[in-house]
Amino acid sequence: MILLDGKKISAQIKSEIASSVAGMEKTGHKIPHLAAIIVGSDGASETYVAHKVKACEQVGFRSTLVRLTEKVQQELLLEKIDEINENADIDGVIVQLPLPAHISEEKVIERIKVEKDVDGFHPVNVGRLVINQPAYISATPNGIIELIKRYDIETSGKHCVILGRSNIVGKPMAVLMARKGYPGDATVTVCHSRTKDIHEVCRQADILIVAMGKAEFVTGDMVKDGAVVIDVGITRVKSVNTRSGWKLMGDVKFDEVALKCSYITPVPGGVGPMTIASLLNNTMKAAKKEIYG
Amino acid sequence: MILLDGKKISAQIKSEIASSVAGMEKTGHKIPHLAAIIVGSDGASETYVAHKVKACEQVGFRSTLVRLTEKVQQELLLEKIDEINENADIDGVIVQLPLPAHISEEKVIERIKVEKDVDGFHPVNVGRLVINQPAYISATPNGIIELIKRYDIETSGKHCVILGRSNIVGKPMAVLMARKGYPGDATVTVCHSRTKDIHEVCRQADILIVAMGKAEFVTGDMVKDGAVVIDVGITRVKSVNTRSGWKLMGDVKFDEVALKCSYITPVPGGVGPMTIASLLNNTMKAAKKEIYG
Repeated sequence: MILLDGKKISAQIKSEIASSVAGMEKTGHKIPHLAAIIVGSDGASETYVAHKVKACEQVGFRSTLVRLTEKVQQELLLEKIDEINENADIDGVIVQLPLPAHISEEKVIERIKVEKDVDGFHPVNVGRLVINQPAYISATPNGIIELIKRYDIETSGKHCVILGRSNIVGKPMAVLMARKGYPGDATVTVCHSRTKDIHEVCRQADILIVAMGKAEFVTGDMVKDGAVVIDVGITRVKSVNTRSGWKLMGDVKFDEVALKCSYITPVPGGVGPMTIASLLNNTMKAAKKEIYG
Repeated sequence: MILLDGKKISAQIKSEIASSVAGMEKTGHKIPHLAAIIVGSDGASETYVAHKVKACEQVGFRSTLVRLTEKVQQELLLEKIDEINENADIDGVIVQLPLPAHISEEKVIERIKVEKDVDGFHPVNVGRLVINQPAYISATPNGIIELIKRYDIETSGKHCVILGRSNIVGKPMAVLMARKGYPGDATVTVCHSRTKDIHEVCRQADILIVAMGKAEFVTGDMVKDGAVVIDVGITRVKSVNTRSGWKLMGDVKFDEVALKCSYITPVPGGVGPMTIASLLNNTMKAAKKEIYG
């Protein structure tokens, strides 16, 4: 069994990006610049944004953090986005989700210029991904694809079973694994809460991607010998064995499943760290105008 | 075995739309108006466009056919689209594909105002479909969904196997069958040329949707008893048994498969006629501003 070490790969990607940035600086190229908008002061959102800003610093990107109060009017947020859209120095912009209930996420996301939508949430980027045109791919699926590539995992003709049909993981993942080329060319099955015999379907998987948000949902008996298992789940549960009183659990019962796998992601340290690497990669692409020219 | 009679259902839908149009006329509402652009004079394209224009007439829509020569410059075609985009009387516009090699289909499709993209090919409409926002859905998948609805076929928890991963059938079909609600909530498997054991996968299908473009690919032994089989394929093959010397064949070996099915579409007269009904439906939605307000 080989551990898909997202922490290590993410560090590697960051170091590659840092070298590119150093090269850009040397040649007088503009440094990539990411803007992040945070509305309110939700603890988890603060943590995520702080991670992203810190990652920008690590690789030498410029970053701008825009803070708006919980009660900000939607119109003001949209104007802020317009401002960033117009600012030629800023290459990419992300709006930390979720937003307060009085603000339409749909309107906010659609307001972002597609060329700067490095989260890949704008319908144009989602649509272009589906019809196989260059597009920003959102962080989690992009990170998983990168892991598969870096470990040179065969996907062509494999049966890839995806548990979960969310907009940000399940659906784009299905598109990516089924499309022509590598990674891709897999036979893809999407399962969800309405799936019957989910155990049986999982046992058919050569590659199992789990994004249910149910701690330890996938047990050893659900996995075929030699399968590749990618665990996107992350649930915080109480624990008497950690100093903090909490521990993070994936959607996969690691100890049981690891015994049967050819490759498996740990939680934490698997898919999680790859998401920030993806965001940095997209921001670099934006700075180089690789997607939209 | 029940025949999914696309010809009958399509006629039914047209008659429903015709009544709506009559109602609109009575109340002084603007009549729906579809513009179709055809470039060059390819035989098949001419036939398709003629069918669409005729269908508009049948239901009482206005239609405008724009003809451009094979050698038209891309810029001129784009200007024509701009003109139609600005024309408040025109609700929907379609550009008959394929286009000559010197014209970028991507640029042409992206130039169409999303609000008038009744073919549902614009990335915004594709993306919105994926993330479950109101969108124009392209004709073939939309037509299949309508057939499933009209025959009240159960989809929740069913295993839907889709053969083919094209942008216009396989991919949107997978999204539609897997999404929440009815029709949908199915476990969806997408197969294609790289799929191993395709016979075995097909035999698991409760609902089998075939869009391979390979005449009579699906044989009786590939279908489970009681399955629903939807045949999107249409291939013209030589025949000594028809006056024209040609006959149309689906991707499914009808005589063998029909014996085992609960429901099956004939070819011709199944999915085909539903596509024009879908286009009319989308044009009506555009006229009523149902999708984009």
